[in-house]
Amino acid sequence: MKNNIRNERPEIREYHSDSTGVFFQISRLLLREVSRFQRIEVFENPFFGKVLVLDGLIQTTERDEFFYHEMLVHPALNSHPSPKDVLIIGGGDGGTLREVLRYPVEQATLVEIDSKVIDVCREAFPWLNPALEDERSRLVIDDGTKFVQETADKFDVILVDSSEPIGPSTPLHSEEFYLNLKEKLNTDGIVAGQIGSPLFHMEAIKREYGFLRKIFKYVALYTGPVPTYPGGTWCYAFLSDWTLPGGTEHPLPPDLTFFNQEMWKSVFSLPEFMKSKLD
Amino acid sequence: MKNNIRNERPEIREYHSDSTGVFFQISRLLLREVSRFQRIEVFENPFFGKVLVLDGLIQTTERDEFFYHEMLVHPALNSHPSPKDVLIIGGGDGGTLREVLRYPVEQATLVEIDSKVIDVCREAFPWLNPALEDERSRLVIDDGTKFVQETADKFDVILVDSSEPIGPSTPLHSEEFYLNLKEKLNTDGIVAGQIGSPLFHMEAIKREYGFLRKIFKYVALYTGPVPTYPGGTWCYAFLSDWTLPGGTEHPLPPDLTFFNQEMWKSVFSLPEFMKSKLD
Repeated sequence: MKNNIRNERPEIREYHSDSTGVFFQISRLLLREVSRFQRIEVFENPFFGKVLVLDGLIQTTERDEFFYHEMLVHPALNSHPSPKDVLIIGGGDGGTLREVLRYPVEQATLVEIDSKVIDVCREAFPWLNPALEDERSRLVIDDGTKFVQETADKFDVILVDSSEPIGPSTPLHSEEFYLNLKEKLNTDGIVAGQIGSPLFHMEAIKREYGFLRKIFKYVALYTGPVPTYPGGTWCYAFLSDWTLPGGTEHPLPPDLTFFNQEMWKSVFSLPEFMKSKLD
Repeated sequence: MKNNIRNERPEIREYHSDSTGVFFQISRLLLREVSRFQRIEVFENPFFGKVLVLDGLIQTTERDEFFYHEMLVHPALNSHPSPKDVLIIGGGDGGTLREVLRYPVEQATLVEIDSKVIDVCREAFPWLNPALEDERSRLVIDDGTKFVQETADKFDVILVDSSEPIGPSTPLHSEEFYLNLKEKLNTDGIVAGQIGSPLFHMEAIKREYGFLRKIFKYVALYTGPVPTYPGGTWCYAFLSDWTLPGGTEHPLPPDLTFFNQEMWKSVFSLPEFMKSKLD
């Protein structure tokens, strides 16, 4: 029985509630340090490969990152008729940038607050350096909330690739941030952001849904699996003033691992327990 | 930060791979014993409530059981024009039986191999006694593989509510079992069964899909979240010789917690990585 396996490797734990969570054995520790902004750990696990952990919360694993990154990027990018300028707030692991670059964008700006995250992810994740070296990529080390207030640019698509609302990502889950962000969105723009676990963060999702509906004409929540995130299912918000998701006839980029054409409607079909809480 | 919580409660672990898994703190242990068939543990956890564990694998928690039981039952029952006789193989925790009894069936037969599971679930899960006391319910303590070989009855819907293919559930994942089971299915019958985690058991799913396609004309795999199962997403098989899922116009039972009308197509839209492995 699998359950009798007892390896002696050190492990990292993430609590999802006060009394439950996940553990990952560490076969190799690449980094454990405290940056100006957060505690950063990167390690290797035999099953999930390299794993990035910020303030004790799993952000990215080599094996399952495609679930999250495809779902954050493709519903928004593929709903825009011609996305030229794309802004990514957060996302220093580069998975979101990699997915954005599958489209014929002119510029993809990644604004990451913590240069230490970029440094360590360059070593850990094989997709980051090629993505940053793409001539369309622009890396800005800055506070995302400050950037959206100060930039003179406007964007076709803005992706909020935050972590949970603790530590440096807290302001990225606020009404004020989304109000400022909307000022930098072109009129046919689209925003997508991650907003948490339907099982563990439903009250936070409800709160965020409440203020997003005041700011944007169309707010469509959608869900998808992310095995290493709390509850195994994650919730995202699709936001715009002019379109619901799936509005264009462009084909999706080839060779996606999770998302496909048949999923357009499916991922936006929310479970009953979410619908009843959001009414 | 949540991650600094360190309670001193004892805990139970389930390994999902050799080096990763989940932990649940035990606030109260209700039962830990070895039956004729398997190791049975029932405990209480502050977040998930009562939890049933067989051979070290989480089967049922009070908080998240609805995901699994609704998904195993409703696609099959709601696709049948008039399900009168329903057979449940396994499912001693009673969640599947409870969902079946939402339909105007004439008889729901639950065949559980281990009477000890029934005994402990009667105490642990508040829905089991009312379900068993329903005059339409028939409880049979028997080996499911033997029952489908020997019974003189035929059924409109058969639900295979097995555990993973280790221990007493191993034969419930075999070609021979499904061949025997089909003999006890009415011509307009439908079968649904759970077949594992797309992330952790994809090879087993592929194998089972292979032999199921030889046995049934229509084989539709579908997925849904189950937070406490490995990977957080579970795969099920819908099987029949006459219909694809969603063929009737009957409304779903009211007051479901997960499944709803908009999900008919969505849950059958498989991720790219599953489709490519099943081609």
